[in-house]
Amino acid sequence: MTSICRYQEADWPLVWPLLHATFASGDTYAFSPESSEAEIHKAWVEAPAATYVACAQDGRLLGTYILKANQPGLGSHVCNCGYVVAPEAQGQGIASAMCEHSQHEAASMGFLAMQFNLVVSTNERAVRLWKKLGFHVVGTLPRAFRHQRLGFVDALVMYKELAT
Amino acid sequence: MTSICRYQEADWPLVWPLLHATFASGDTYAFSPESSEAEIHKAWVEAPAATYVACAQDGRLLGTYILKANQPGLGSHVCNCGYVVAPEAQGQGIASAMCEHSQHEAASMGFLAMQFNLVVSTNERAVRLWKKLGFHVVGTLPRAFRHQRLGFVDALVMYKELAT
Repeated sequence: MTSICRYQEADWPLVWPLLHATFASGDTYAFSPESSEAEIHKAWVEAPAATYVACAQDGRLLGTYILKANQPGLGSHVCNCGYVVAPEAQGQGIASAMCEHSQHEAASMGFLAMQFNLVVSTNERAVRLWKKLGFHVVGTLPRAFRHQRLGFVDALVMYKELAT
Repeated sequence: MTSICRYQEADWPLVWPLLHATFASGDTYAFSPESSEAEIHKAWVEAPAATYVACAQDGRLLGTYILKANQPGLGSHVCNCGYVVAPEAQGQGIASAMCEHSQHEAASMGFLAMQFNLVVSTNERAVRLWKKLGFHVVGTLPRAFRHQRLGFVDALVMYKELAT
């Protein structure tokens, strides 16, 4: 059983090592592998409209995600999310559960659509999952992601209008 | 003769009324028509990597633009710009001159591509101009812009790889 709940500052000692390890791999997220803890705290906790954690019954951190408006003002009805799953929890449906959860949260906050701005094209598992969950590839950004191992690769813009 | 140069704080008393009037129309930019002067100063002067003004020989402000990285870290080789032309200077090639200028500036800063995230689809003049200047529509975001007069309209993602 996975529970997804709002992030609390007491979660940071578990969340930060997961984010740090994820961004250090340099294959899925734009955040620089050299980002400092303060920079990531700002991006993951302070800047978003909301931050969440997915936990196992025994309290282990399985994943975390953020939810925020993708644009100001006249574009602020479209939200953006970012999801990170713990390596040892891969393949257990955590990303799927967080994405479904985020869509409900976003709709309840009044967002009308969700947009992913930079899905790394080589991250095939993520692309497949987002498609399964109703997202469409609405654009391809040529060589927009500097993959740590593969060099410049395309990134996808994915989009889903939310049920209201 | 138009000269384009780096913004200085002494330009703000001319730049702010132009931005305020532009965003108040609610038909081209995501910035809320209710944005405060402090919010716009932050977005137009403090946050971008660089801000520019286009001036006539007599010192009149003809336009202004911003240049910044579109994503952090591994996406930071792609830049983003926003351009505003003074209403009385429309149709004189100011947007075109600023866009050409920005491409040179961006390339000299090391950016490899330029991306526009939210080109309002009904802003046909802008779409036509960006295409003429080598940008491609790489994506369409359904109903992603809340137009003040027309309601929800599509927005375009436009992209150009820069000559290096």
